[in-house]
Amino acid sequence: MKLSVGKDNLQNALHKVLSVVSTRTTIPVLSNALLAANGDGLTITTTDLEVSITTRIAATVEKEGEITLPAKKLGQIIDRLPSGDVLIDTDEQHSTRISCNEIRYHLMGMDAAEFPRENNFQEERRVRLPAVAFGKLLRKIGYSVSQDQGRLVLTGILLSIREGNFTAVATDGRRLALIEQVLESAEPQMDGDVVLPGKVASELQRLLVEDGDVEIRTADARISFQFGSTTLISKLVDGAYPNYRQVVPDNFSNAVVIPREQLALALSRVSLVVTESGSSVKFNLKPGHLLLSAKSAEYGEASEPLEVSYEGQPLVISFNPDYLADPLKFLECDELTLRFNDEYKPVVLLGDEGFLYVIMPMRN
Amino acid sequence: MKLSVGKDNLQNALHKVLSVVSTRTTIPVLSNALLAANGDGLTITTTDLEVSITTRIAATVEKEGEITLPAKKLGQIIDRLPSGDVLIDTDEQHSTRISCNEIRYHLMGMDAAEFPRENNFQEERRVRLPAVAFGKLLRKIGYSVSQDQGRLVLTGILLSIREGNFTAVATDGRRLALIEQVLESAEPQMDGDVVLPGKVASELQRLLVEDGDVEIRTADARISFQFGSTTLISKLVDGAYPNYRQVVPDNFSNAVVIPREQLALALSRVSLVVTESGSSVKFNLKPGHLLLSAKSAEYGEASEPLEVSYEGQPLVISFNPDYLADPLKFLECDELTLRFNDEYKPVVLLGDEGFLYVIMPMRN
Repeated sequence: MKLSVGKDNLQNALHKVLSVVSTRTTIPVLSNALLAANGDGLTITTTDLEVSITTRIAATVEKEGEITLPAKKLGQIIDRLPSGDVLIDTDEQHSTRISCNEIRYHLMGMDAAEFPRENNFQEERRVRLPAVAFGKLLRKIGYSVSQDQGRLVLTGILLSIREGNFTAVATDGRRLALIEQVLESAEPQMDGDVVLPGKVASELQRLLVEDGDVEIRTADARISFQFGSTTLISKLVDGAYPNYRQVVPDNFSNAVVIPREQLALALSRVSLVVTESGSSVKFNLKPGHLLLSAKSAEYGEASEPLEVSYEGQPLVISFNPDYLADPLKFLECDELTLRFNDEYKPVVLLGDEGFLYVIMPMRN
Repeated sequence: MKLSVGKDNLQNALHKVLSVVSTRTTIPVLSNALLAANGDGLTITTTDLEVSITTRIAATVEKEGEITLPAKKLGQIIDRLPSGDVLIDTDEQHSTRISCNEIRYHLMGMDAAEFPRENNFQEERRVRLPAVAFGKLLRKIGYSVSQDQGRLVLTGILLSIREGNFTAVATDGRRLALIEQVLESAEPQMDGDVVLPGKVASELQRLLVEDGDVEIRTADARISFQFGSTTLISKLVDGAYPNYRQVVPDNFSNAVVIPREQLALALSRVSLVVTESGSSVKFNLKPGHLLLSAKSAEYGEASEPLEVSYEGQPLVISFNPDYLADPLKFLECDELTLRFNDEYKPVVLLGDEGFLYVIMPMRN
C-alpha cells in the first residue's frame, strides 16, 4: 500500500473513528485501525466488536492495499504533523513509513487479514432522516438512559416506527424522555422497534454535525448509520423495551409556562445549597409567580422568584433538581410548559416540538 | 457585618484565595473563608495552616464585623450570580444573607473567632522584585522540584541572595534548573537562603499576573509575598538545601545552538514512539545538522532533522525526552544553547538570561 493524503483530512477522519478503539484488549488487532487504499481514496475502520466506524477520504493511491496500524498512536502522530501531504508506504513486513516534509516514522503494523470485518448486512428496514436533527434528537433525550447494567434494555434508546410516526424514548425508571415526529415518507414495512446502545447514541451526537441525511438501516440484531462518507454499525440491545406509553399521564388539571433559560439559571443557583442526591427544590406557585427554594442542614437556604404564566390555585411541588435540570440544557425552545395535577402525580414537561419528559414530584 | 460589594470584584477575590482551602479537614473552620469588613473594604482570608492568602477589595461597609463562610460553596454561589451589587448581611447566629437582585441565600457561617490567624510577622529580610517577572521565573524552573516526599527539601525551590545576586534553584536529583539575576538594589543584610514549598511556587505562578512589584519578606521559618492588595504567607521548607554549585560543570568543549520552538515540536513528535519512562531520544550531531531519532519495540521508529549551529565533531548523545522537553515549554528565548563535553558528562542548557539547566545524558 502506498498513498499520499492531506494531513488535515486524515486528522479529521481519525478523530471520527478513534473513539471505538479499546486500549486494553486481549485481541491486539482491536487497538489498531484498518487502513485500506483503493481507487481514489483511503478507507479507515475501527471496531471494538460491538461497534465499528468506517470513514473514507480522498487520497492519491500509488499502490492499493491494506494495513492495520496502532490507532491511538497514529492519531497522536497525525495530530502533531504540520499541514501538508502525508505519505504512507507499507512494506511486506507490515512496517509502514509515514512521512511529512522531513519528518519520518516507521510504525509497526499488523496484517490486515487479522482485522475483524462486519458480515454482510441483510437489510430489513430503512429510514432516512436529516443528520443534524437526528443528532440533536438523541441529545435531547440521551441523558435519561439508565446507567445500571442490571437492566440492560434501559441502557439503550428505543427507536420505534409505527404508521408513519417515529418515536425515540429513553428512561432510567425514574424519569422518561421521548421525542415523537411524523416521518415525511412512510411505508408499512418500516414499522418496528429497535433499542440502540446508549454509548452509540453518544457517538452519534458527536458525529452527526454535518448537513445531509443519515440513512438508518436495521438487520438481524444490528443497526447501521450512514452519513457523509462515514458508516457506523452497531449491535442492538437485546430485550423487550417496557411499555412506556403507560407511564405518560394523559389528563392534567393545571399548567405553568416558564422561560427555559431563566429556569435553568435559577435552578442551578438555588440547588447549590443542596448537596445530597435525595434533596429537592421546591416550586411555590401562585398566579403569575413561581418561587424556587431549597435548603440543607449543611449550608442553609436559597430562593429565587420567576415571573411565569400560571392561573391556577397556589401549590407547592418539589423536584429532584438534577432530573429537572437535565432536559433544560439540551432543549432549544424559549419557553417550556409543566403540566400537572397535584404535588404527588407525575408531571410532564413540554418544550421543543414533539418532546415530552415525565418526572415524579418528590415528597417532603 | 453588613456591606455591599461588586459581584465581579468579589468573584476575582475569591478565585485568588480558594486554592488553599481544604475540603476534607478535621478542623471545620479551615473549609471556611474569613470575611472581615472595615473602613472602605472587605478582606478575605483562607488558610490550610501551612499557607494563608489574604486579599482586600473595595466595599461599601454599612456595619463593620467579621464572619467565616464555607469557602468553596461561597465561590460557587458568587460565580453563578449575575453582574451587579452583592449584599452581605450577617446576624448574631452567624447566618449570613447574601442577595443580588431578587436572588437570596442564607448561608450558615461559623464564628470568626475560631479562624486561625497568622502570628505577628517579625521581618528578618526583605526584597522587592517585579511581580510578573518573578512569577515567570518560578515557572521556568518549578517543574524541576522533586515529587518525592522522602527528601522534603528537594520538593521546594531554593531562593538565595548572596552579595547582590539572587538565585532560584529547583532539582529532583536527576536534573537541575536555576535562574540567577543581579538585584537592582542590594544590601548585605539581605543575604540568606530559604526553601519555598513547591506548591506555593505553583500558587505564585497563578497569582503573579498583574503589573507592579512583589515584596518578599522572611521571618523565622515563614515567608510572605505581598503584591497588589494580596498577601500570601507560607511556612518555609525545613532543612539544608544541597550544594547545587558542585552539580554545574564549568568547562565544555562543545556547543550547539538550536531554535527553541522547532526543537520542542520535533522532540514532541519523535518521542511519540517511545512510551516507557526509561526510553531516550538520540541527538545525532554533525556540523550544521541535528537529527533527532527514537525507537521502541512496541511502535517502531521516528526521526526528524533540524538545522542548527554546530561546528564540532560528529557525536551521538541521548536524553530523557521529558526532561529535555520541560524547560522548552516555559523559556521565552528564540534559540537555546546546549553545552557539553561528550556523550557521558552532564550537559548544560542555556536560554533566557540567567537561566541554566543541567541534565545527564542517557546511556544506551
